[in-house]
Amino acid sequence: MTAYSDLETRFRRMSALGEAAGVLHWDRAVLMPEGGAEARSDQLAALAMTRHEMITDDLLSDLLDQAADDVADDPWCAANLAEMRRDQLHACAVPADLVEALSTEGLACEMLWRAARAKSDFSLVAPKLAEVLALVRQSADAKAEALGVTPYEALMDQYEPGARVAHIDALFAELAEFLPDFIETVLVHQSKRADALPLDGPFAIEVQRALGVRLMERLGFDFDRGRLDISLHPFCGGVPDDVRITTRYDEGDFTQSLMGILHETGHALYEMGLPVDWRHQPVGGARGMAMHESQSLLIEMQACRSREFITFAAPLMRDAFGGEGAAWGVDNLYRHYTRVARSLIRVDADEVTYPAHVILRYRLERALIAGDMKVDDIPGAWNDAMKDLLHITPPDDADGCLQDIHWFDGTFGYFPTYTMGALAAAQLFDAAHRAEPGIPQAISEGNFGPLVGWMGEHIHRRASSASTQDLITEATGASLGIDAFRRHLTARYLAE
Amino acid sequence: MTAYSDLETRFRRMSALGEAAGVLHWDRAVLMPEGGAEARSDQLAALAMTRHEMITDDLLSDLLDQAADDVADDPWCAANLAEMRRDQLHACAVPADLVEALSTEGLACEMLWRAARAKSDFSLVAPKLAEVLALVRQSADAKAEALGVTPYEALMDQYEPGARVAHIDALFAELAEFLPDFIETVLVHQSKRADALPLDGPFAIEVQRALGVRLMERLGFDFDRGRLDISLHPFCGGVPDDVRITTRYDEGDFTQSLMGILHETGHALYEMGLPVDWRHQPVGGARGMAMHESQSLLIEMQACRSREFITFAAPLMRDAFGGEGAAWGVDNLYRHYTRVARSLIRVDADEVTYPAHVILRYRLERALIAGDMKVDDIPGAWNDAMKDLLHITPPDDADGCLQDIHWFDGTFGYFPTYTMGALAAAQLFDAAHRAEPGIPQAISEGNFGPLVGWMGEHIHRRASSASTQDLITEATGASLGIDAFRRHLTARYLAE
Repeated sequence: MTAYSDLETRFRRMSALGEAAGVLHWDRAVLMPEGGAEARSDQLAALAMTRHEMITDDLLSDLLDQAADDVADDPWCAANLAEMRRDQLHACAVPADLVEALSTEGLACEMLWRAARAKSDFSLVAPKLAEVLALVRQSADAKAEALGVTPYEALMDQYEPGARVAHIDALFAELAEFLPDFIETVLVHQSKRADALPLDGPFAIEVQRALGVRLMERLGFDFDRGRLDISLHPFCGGVPDDVRITTRYDEGDFTQSLMGILHETGHALYEMGLPVDWRHQPVGGARGMAMHESQSLLIEMQACRSREFITFAAPLMRDAFGGEGAAWGVDNLYRHYTRVARSLIRVDADEVTYPAHVILRYRLERALIAGDMKVDDIPGAWNDAMKDLLHITPPDDADGCLQDIHWFDGTFGYFPTYTMGALAAAQLFDAAHRAEPGIPQAISEGNFGPLVGWMGEHIHRRASSASTQDLITEATGASLGIDAFRRHLTARYLAE
Repeated sequence: MTAYSDLETRFRRMSALGEAAGVLHWDRAVLMPEGGAEARSDQLAALAMTRHEMITDDLLSDLLDQAADDVADDPWCAANLAEMRRDQLHACAVPADLVEALSTEGLACEMLWRAARAKSDFSLVAPKLAEVLALVRQSADAKAEALGVTPYEALMDQYEPGARVAHIDALFAELAEFLPDFIETVLVHQSKRADALPLDGPFAIEVQRALGVRLMERLGFDFDRGRLDISLHPFCGGVPDDVRITTRYDEGDFTQSLMGILHETGHALYEMGLPVDWRHQPVGGARGMAMHESQSLLIEMQACRSREFITFAAPLMRDAFGGEGAAWGVDNLYRHYTRVARSLIRVDADEVTYPAHVILRYRLERALIAGDMKVDDIPGAWNDAMKDLLHITPPDDADGCLQDIHWFDGTFGYFPTYTMGALAAAQLFDAAHRAEPGIPQAISEGNFGPLVGWMGEHIHRRASSASTQDLITEATGASLGIDAFRRHLTARYLAE
């Protein structure tokens, strides 16, 4: 056995244990009775500790040092070894007591956050958040040293490997320059036309689900290799041959849940398209959270909010719910799905205003990690930035700086991936369209084969064999930028 | 940290990993899509290997040797240490390559068995079964030496710790003496009365489920700590604070599924009643499979097939299904639930004939393990024993020696636990009734508090703190015997 094949065996086991944890998380979110919470935490902790011990094993470190020669002739094996090394550096960089403290304090802070949000009082959670931030900064420093990057980049690297501040700064500066005026223009443009006609419910949940399943099948979701269920917070979990997406239904409005299902289906298609030969190896996994988000937004924003898709889906919606008249026409349904509004809450934001929410958070969390800003200054800075970027001021902390669970649970460095994903989605869709000019017509017929086929070849099947930057450059001919996104927004929101 | 507390930490982790595997098994049986099978096998194998490595760790063996002094003053800790030692002996007795071979060949044989059963041709699976038997006998020999018991006892010990052949031989000899004539007498007795009137369906599955849930709640099943779902083969899984039972429904007959739910609820109440203070430790788990079966049969056979329970449940059944007339009266429903028949299939057998099916299998598997019988002789020996014990002859192997998955999947030594459980159920119910004379009246009012309360004190909360034999003797005043079972059968099947 070579050092490399020994590593493959070890990572295969760690991956299988990680997958087991994934099933337990899914189960907890979807169907676990309340009483099971404590035992479930113990199960997840046991899995996490076992994996941590395996990856921080000194012998594994030695094997990583010895394996370089074994993979010299095979780029996938070499990429796999590099991913192994990255995982190991992250795991070994932070001492066990700091990992433990982060987990414990993050959980405690999340609990306080729930109470503080309910009372809309940031001061209730501020002291604990300051503790969590201090621990996160320690962890970021340790990882920065191990990875040879800045502390904030080390945090981002946990979610989007290889993300660099200089690049994101540049992208976000361009967006911040472009967006405020663009939003204003779109709002003026939309104000000149009539409001969308309301779609009158109720919409039976079973019917909503059946319609969702029908569209998922059209997109290529294989129900022999996945499920659709219900959870409070929609997500995509499971493994490539058993992908589990969730949604939540509202009897009064089917449009959001349906689009949520399509969004998660985008995540699922990525997972289902990962290369079979590299199951359970680091290189065989999805590239990172920006790339993952690009695949969900590609399906949701680029494909399924397009006039072409609404043209295809409108008759199915009418059939499902017995809709009649102008409200159920393509024009009106399209208007529902392309409404733009300045709003307080990120997760409810449309694709035009969404980046503003992300840029705000990116600026604040960078300052917090750099030590340039104190926790107590968050509410004021938040509200200033909202005014600057979106021209609105939150009436209270609940609809302001307390709205997201991020930060309070110890998550810093994740936010930029949402907008990197949106930019990548636009750029990838544009490239696919150029390569396969028939894609819009196919989508209008409910045929996702050309789009998903192209994406499978250029993104899904390449898994983590190259960096996000390289995958995007190779697939689109350019590094990640904002041009395609800007063109997309302009075409969709100002052309008609 | 003492050696004992170190052991507690280790076993806590192993238990949590075992629980994780339990969730994965449940998920596979209840809702996993087909495509997930391979990844799920990998996940379960990773968990099994991790636990195996933990329990066979030399350091753990040293700790077991050192811990005796730490627990001298605490009987529960001492019992816990004894259970740890038992688990470790089982795990260490068998070399890794034999464990692997048993797993691989057992799986291969199970596959062949499915084909052989479909074609009703034992010869198709006989050669592979002979291989599996050879491996099982090797394993039994190794465990026998480690545990200081006979090979067959070593196999039984995996399912029912402390089970001894001399005791089971004596019990089963008494039963084999009593049952054939008793069955004949009951059949003659039942033949003198009219057949039960048919209950006409269809019975909507949602209504069946709702009735099942209602009765489960009456029995004390806490839905904040458990679930009821559907699977092909009903079972009870999960953990004490998240107990998951399953059933399958037949739209044409609600009676079997309903009683199946009550049977599994008996298992669930045992799990839910285990002592909170000993979660994740070996001593805190259920005592063994005979005791577990005693708790399901206590609920199903002793309590819920009684005239008292049917008196309580009949109006609920009528309400649920809109039943009217004599068919839905207590007498007729009770007749449905107490029908006796000589039948070919163990899992469909009534409580009177069931022990005959078990005794047959016990005799055969003991001879197979002892080397007194060859695999090729199974069909003939099976049919001879059926004739001897039940006076019927299987028309083919599918309804004869190919009916059970046991043996073909490598399971030997499990069968006796079914009938030990039936005997224990009768003896425990009898003792509970003597201690709490109001139990039958309470059951007729749908009040299970007195019965389950007594069982909680004498069995559930004692977990594995004493042997099955000691628990039964302390709870009932006598060692496990057939007297209570015989009295129960006589009272139920001949008295009226």
